[in-house]
Amino acid sequence: MKSFEYNVYTHMYVGSDFYDQIPVELAKYGKNVLFIYGGGSIKRNGLYDKVISELGGFNVIELSGIEPNPRIEKVREGVEICKTHNIDVLLPVGGGSTVDTAKAIAAGAKYDGDAWDFFSRGPEHKAVGDSLPIVDVLTLAATGTEMNRNAVVSNLGTQEKYGLGGETLLPKASFLDPVNTFTVSKYQTAAGSADILSHLMENFFKRTTGADVQDFVNIALQKAVIKNAYIALVTPEDYDARANLLWASSLALGGIPAGGKPGAWTCHAIEHELSAFYDITHGVGLAIITPRFLNHIIKKDKTATAKIAEYARGVFDINEADDTLAALKGIQLQYETFKKWGIPMTLQEVGIDGKKLREMSEHAVKHGNLEHGDSFVSLTADDVEAILVDSLTESEFH
Amino acid sequence: MKSFEYNVYTHMYVGSDFYDQIPVELAKYGKNVLFIYGGGSIKRNGLYDKVISELGGFNVIELSGIEPNPRIEKVREGVEICKTHNIDVLLPVGGGSTVDTAKAIAAGAKYDGDAWDFFSRGPEHKAVGDSLPIVDVLTLAATGTEMNRNAVVSNLGTQEKYGLGGETLLPKASFLDPVNTFTVSKYQTAAGSADILSHLMENFFKRTTGADVQDFVNIALQKAVIKNAYIALVTPEDYDARANLLWASSLALGGIPAGGKPGAWTCHAIEHELSAFYDITHGVGLAIITPRFLNHIIKKDKTATAKIAEYARGVFDINEADDTLAALKGIQLQYETFKKWGIPMTLQEVGIDGKKLREMSEHAVKHGNLEHGDSFVSLTADDVEAILVDSLTESEFH
Repeated sequence: MKSFEYNVYTHMYVGSDFYDQIPVELAKYGKNVLFIYGGGSIKRNGLYDKVISELGGFNVIELSGIEPNPRIEKVREGVEICKTHNIDVLLPVGGGSTVDTAKAIAAGAKYDGDAWDFFSRGPEHKAVGDSLPIVDVLTLAATGTEMNRNAVVSNLGTQEKYGLGGETLLPKASFLDPVNTFTVSKYQTAAGSADILSHLMENFFKRTTGADVQDFVNIALQKAVIKNAYIALVTPEDYDARANLLWASSLALGGIPAGGKPGAWTCHAIEHELSAFYDITHGVGLAIITPRFLNHIIKKDKTATAKIAEYARGVFDINEADDTLAALKGIQLQYETFKKWGIPMTLQEVGIDGKKLREMSEHAVKHGNLEHGDSFVSLTADDVEAILVDSLTESEFH
Repeated sequence: MKSFEYNVYTHMYVGSDFYDQIPVELAKYGKNVLFIYGGGSIKRNGLYDKVISELGGFNVIELSGIEPNPRIEKVREGVEICKTHNIDVLLPVGGGSTVDTAKAIAAGAKYDGDAWDFFSRGPEHKAVGDSLPIVDVLTLAATGTEMNRNAVVSNLGTQEKYGLGGETLLPKASFLDPVNTFTVSKYQTAAGSADILSHLMENFFKRTTGADVQDFVNIALQKAVIKNAYIALVTPEDYDARANLLWASSLALGGIPAGGKPGAWTCHAIEHELSAFYDITHGVGLAIITPRFLNHIIKKDKTATAKIAEYARGVFDINEADDTLAALKGIQLQYETFKKWGIPMTLQEVGIDGKKLREMSEHAVKHGNLEHGDSFVSLTADDVEAILVDSLTESEFH
């Protein structure tokens, strides 16, 4: 394995009995709180009231209406509020989009220019410096943003969806109450679980050898996600299943699977173009792309096969000595897992036809540095286009 | 799973290229450094010089001679130095005993009474309050103290070996350079690896159900330890094997396997009596006791068998449908693993005869609260004595 640093100081509260710690965590930073949330779901399920009832001693300003695939417009609105009202700490209550919006606001609030500069790939790009502290209450197991330093935001005006990372963006505390995810729909539960698996696979498929701790833990988390996603889809109020999905989502991107295994992510780079062009659900896009990606690289680069076979044997207990056969069986089982979860597994089903595949492929290779970067396998625009063409309709892998 | 908090903010540096970060970490706390180490090994292998060469801008006082099973006398000596010289930060360079000594000194330096009060089970017992910060350089994969809030110290005068825990005792930064463990002897490599496995098993064998993330990660870490201990024993300078053992040792006690799974530890309570009475190597004592403990509880409490079978199938890939048979096969394979590592697997081989078994059993039940506490299986002094009698000579499990 390569040298690495691990420094994840978020105070994680996992369980239903920690609401009284929210004011304790917030009070470390000040009195002026920006309470950020999405739509009405936290009002319908009572979480809004539960959190508000803990905020008696604070000056609370609200910013609502955060959408999935969070938009830069909302970030700008939040930055403005922070500057006007001297906000001390951000309190996003919601899923990954809400927390990611808070991260972008946190950075923007301490910056004089436009917050999109942090995301932009152009000459106006700026690194994140100081930022406001974040304390979050999570309502969806998916992105892992609650325990890392990254965020993703879309600019629909320019059809761009980019990530940013910053040393100061790690949340100070995250509250994971499994009960808050009981009402997550089957579709979002499946999409979120696919997102977690994708994060784990992006970290697993690297060229670094000898990182057994990282890779064995990675496989373990994938097994936990697959087992508990099935349970949560059948029994949405199964506390343990929801708790396992939440904790797995945090750990998947919490630094352990990635430590000592550098390298660019591929499927996320491709999916970000789908979301930027068509605003589809991120986890669904990932589920559609990943099996086709793995199948494509088996054909393109034989040196990738052994690692895919290792994944297949580890996650799906495949007992098959031949690497190529084991890998293909694993890809097929991954595809079937997503299908059984109810994920639409073709681009056509999510409203994407063949028209912009070339344009998105070129964007993905350019923005993700997929051809000349340090990703698992080098991909040209032709490769990505082939993966997307394969993704248009149903597939079988053998 | 039960509710839990996870808050592990130690900055972990894993690799050979982070020595220049030692002064950066120390400087956060002040100029006066207490450099704590054991005997001559860090002088022989060059680590002493390497660390000293980074400490140009600091006032460094040294405390050496820390022994395995660290002694309260050394703690008192360190506390005295801290108070006399206004020490700002502790820099233990060594294995678990050295870091644990530093933790006890860190607590004692901010306390007016005797440092043994933190360990004592008597009316003079004190909880750890404020403490000095610790930055450590680790030279042995074993105790996991580099990433948690606990320490164990012996009082040979009273034949007591007790642990302490304190919110403030988590090291601020830990430097894990695999190269520093190349010279660890086969015996200590095996004993350290057994210690890691024992920590994982103590966390695994709990009554809490539904903690899949914790338990799957636990199994993954055990597999990584078993695989890499074999490699390190054959090829002591295998960087990846040493890195995996170090990182697994930190994660084993770093909060993830234990989160949401409360309950007292059993084998450690028993082993601490062996070490307190006979000063044997901690990991060796654990390796000797654990298979006999598991074998004993299978007979005593049928409700424990399923969890032991889960362990056996997970760690040793045992394909056996019957729980009792799977469990026994797992115990036998665990015993054989320790033997293959070269660990003396009987109490007689480490110089312990039958004379004090009863006394140690009674101490273990009392100090570990094994009969009426929340351990995996309730044990009386008769149970512990039976486990120790079984441990005197060679065993077979079927």
